[in-house]
Amino acid sequence: MPMAKKKQSRSITYKQAGVDIDAGEEMVRQIGPMVKRTYTPRVLDELGGFAGLFSLDFREKLLKRNYKDPVLVACTDGVGTKLKIAIDSDRLDSVGIDLVAMSVNDLICVGAEPLFFLDYLAVGKLAPERMLQIVKGVSEGCLESNCALLGGETAEMPDFYKPRDFDMAGFAVGVVERDRIINGKKTEVGDVAIAIASDGLHSNGYGLARRVLLDRARYKFTSKPPLLGGAMVGEEMLKPTKIYVNAVMNVLKKYRVKHVVKAMAHITGGGLPGNLPRVLPDGLTIRVKRSSWETPDIFKLIAAKGPVDSIEMMRVFNMGVGFVMVVAPAFVKSVMAELTKASQKCWVLGKVKKGGPEIQWA
Amino acid sequence: MPMAKKKQSRSITYKQAGVDIDAGEEMVRQIGPMVKRTYTPRVLDELGGFAGLFSLDFREKLLKRNYKDPVLVACTDGVGTKLKIAIDSDRLDSVGIDLVAMSVNDLICVGAEPLFFLDYLAVGKLAPERMLQIVKGVSEGCLESNCALLGGETAEMPDFYKPRDFDMAGFAVGVVERDRIINGKKTEVGDVAIAIASDGLHSNGYGLARRVLLDRARYKFTSKPPLLGGAMVGEEMLKPTKIYVNAVMNVLKKYRVKHVVKAMAHITGGGLPGNLPRVLPDGLTIRVKRSSWETPDIFKLIAAKGPVDSIEMMRVFNMGVGFVMVVAPAFVKSVMAELTKASQKCWVLGKVKKGGPEIQWA
Repeated sequence: MPMAKKKQSRSITYKQAGVDIDAGEEMVRQIGPMVKRTYTPRVLDELGGFAGLFSLDFREKLLKRNYKDPVLVACTDGVGTKLKIAIDSDRLDSVGIDLVAMSVNDLICVGAEPLFFLDYLAVGKLAPERMLQIVKGVSEGCLESNCALLGGETAEMPDFYKPRDFDMAGFAVGVVERDRIINGKKTEVGDVAIAIASDGLHSNGYGLARRVLLDRARYKFTSKPPLLGGAMVGEEMLKPTKIYVNAVMNVLKKYRVKHVVKAMAHITGGGLPGNLPRVLPDGLTIRVKRSSWETPDIFKLIAAKGPVDSIEMMRVFNMGVGFVMVVAPAFVKSVMAELTKASQKCWVLGKVKKGGPEIQWA
Repeated sequence: MPMAKKKQSRSITYKQAGVDIDAGEEMVRQIGPMVKRTYTPRVLDELGGFAGLFSLDFREKLLKRNYKDPVLVACTDGVGTKLKIAIDSDRLDSVGIDLVAMSVNDLICVGAEPLFFLDYLAVGKLAPERMLQIVKGVSEGCLESNCALLGGETAEMPDFYKPRDFDMAGFAVGVVERDRIINGKKTEVGDVAIAIASDGLHSNGYGLARRVLLDRARYKFTSKPPLLGGAMVGEEMLKPTKIYVNAVMNVLKKYRVKHVVKAMAHITGGGLPGNLPRVLPDGLTIRVKRSSWETPDIFKLIAAKGPVDSIEMMRVFNMGVGFVMVVAPAFVKSVMAELTKASQKCWVLGKVKKGGPEIQWA
């Protein structure tokens, strides 16, 4: 009978081996309210919690919006070594936003509406109050992108992570009507690429950014180099990745029948040269007008303090362009008006030309 | 013009900062065939690769199986410190199976059919041939659970992981018809719990198992302690988690109208005492007949070498029971016949009684 209490003095428990089940359960209880505020009417609250359940279609007559031929879309991503800045400065409340942003911004590139999100969090040592801060960020990112935070896993792995270190992975699922999938195939010569501004580094290139700003230039979190115009290096490096879901969804909803938006790209690792060719058909490229926007200060600082070659800068960082929409020329003005209404800074980045796969510069 | 080549001698590149974009792209090319063999006809091969696309319904008339009121189900999990055994022994081809198993075995607990899987892999140093081994395991797990490996992310994070260390997270999505969701609510007194055998430790309790077997008892990978009857400690500790998808799906498909299966539990961290109460309604419990099965040798070895208290053993490990199905008494024989046909060792574990939430022992 295993339930007989026969405690041995030398006997070892799971907690002594480094894993605290009770602390884990306490944390799950604490993050509950944070998670529940992201629940939409489509989340089913089921017993047990082995899995998260999400109704694909609204049942309410009023909200009915059934998909005829639904295609599920899924993405996964992490935040990379931006986490190191958050850990070293003990500011953990924004990397969760980055985590959500990195996946949902990819999701919307095919025209999908984000539905739900799950997170995996691996830590050296479970510290409930630190986990709460992280999950708070995740839930804020979910609210901003209309995603339910449907599930998550927290793993305590003292052999892999230093006590205060952690890593995280995000998974997003969305849905798109099959004949509304945006796959770039309808792109034509003369279509126009609209840039939407980034909010700085977002979540890419931190290996290089940290090496240059922290190791070579020896800036501290609170350093205010003249080139940043009064901003702190640390705050600039921790600014959350912008979530483009609402702005892009507004544009897509405006044109339910016409195929106005031909292609979209989330500008991540690889920059414009790496990400634009991925969404264009063979034989087409974009001629990017480099003078159409001013490089934000943080990138100028990195280029100067590296120094980092301008080609390398463009290949590693977004350089101020966080998202690109390729649209039919007749709709450029109305799409830009819609983006502006959604508080996005946007401009004409360039035009679709014959050529490629490399992008062209003008 | 950023494309002008003006190489500076002191200038620093992303590669020098520790991130090799080309090695990453090479790896993506290499794992392609491994991933594609998991593709079902429902995977859409779209340009770009920002996101994975999966058609919810078969379009082919012959295969038509449209969901009337589809509920999506999602799970995420990792493998935990079992990874350490794989890394230290340089046997990386099975932990991918564990990764898939941990999520899909949770997914099927609500009656969902697994659709697709995504993996996140974070490494200290990108070594394509090691990554290939890992992804090979993931793709095998996917094939075994009828999941398409729809996407993934590999992050190189030298600041977080030692060069040969890595962590991984898995994410599975499935679908269930709303009125076929298994949530435990129909469970009644007299229903019968059927146990399906585990294949050893699966992916839980490694913090304690490693402490006891490797630190205290000082076993090597190749040690063959008498209690294991000729088996190597390392091989026993690396045995992949059993995937219960096909066995359980066969049972569910057999009873498309009747509600035969009332509740299901994947026995993970927390063991039987932690996982059975999660799937039962308030006021009901299961009286588990401890003598109904023999504890596998690996658990006896851990209990002896710790020593670990029998209560603690039961709370940390699956103790030989990997999955539990609670079924109506009239169908016990036919469900067990179906499981046996699917090559699963199974037995009557106990009966549903009034009480709880703690399980009872007989």
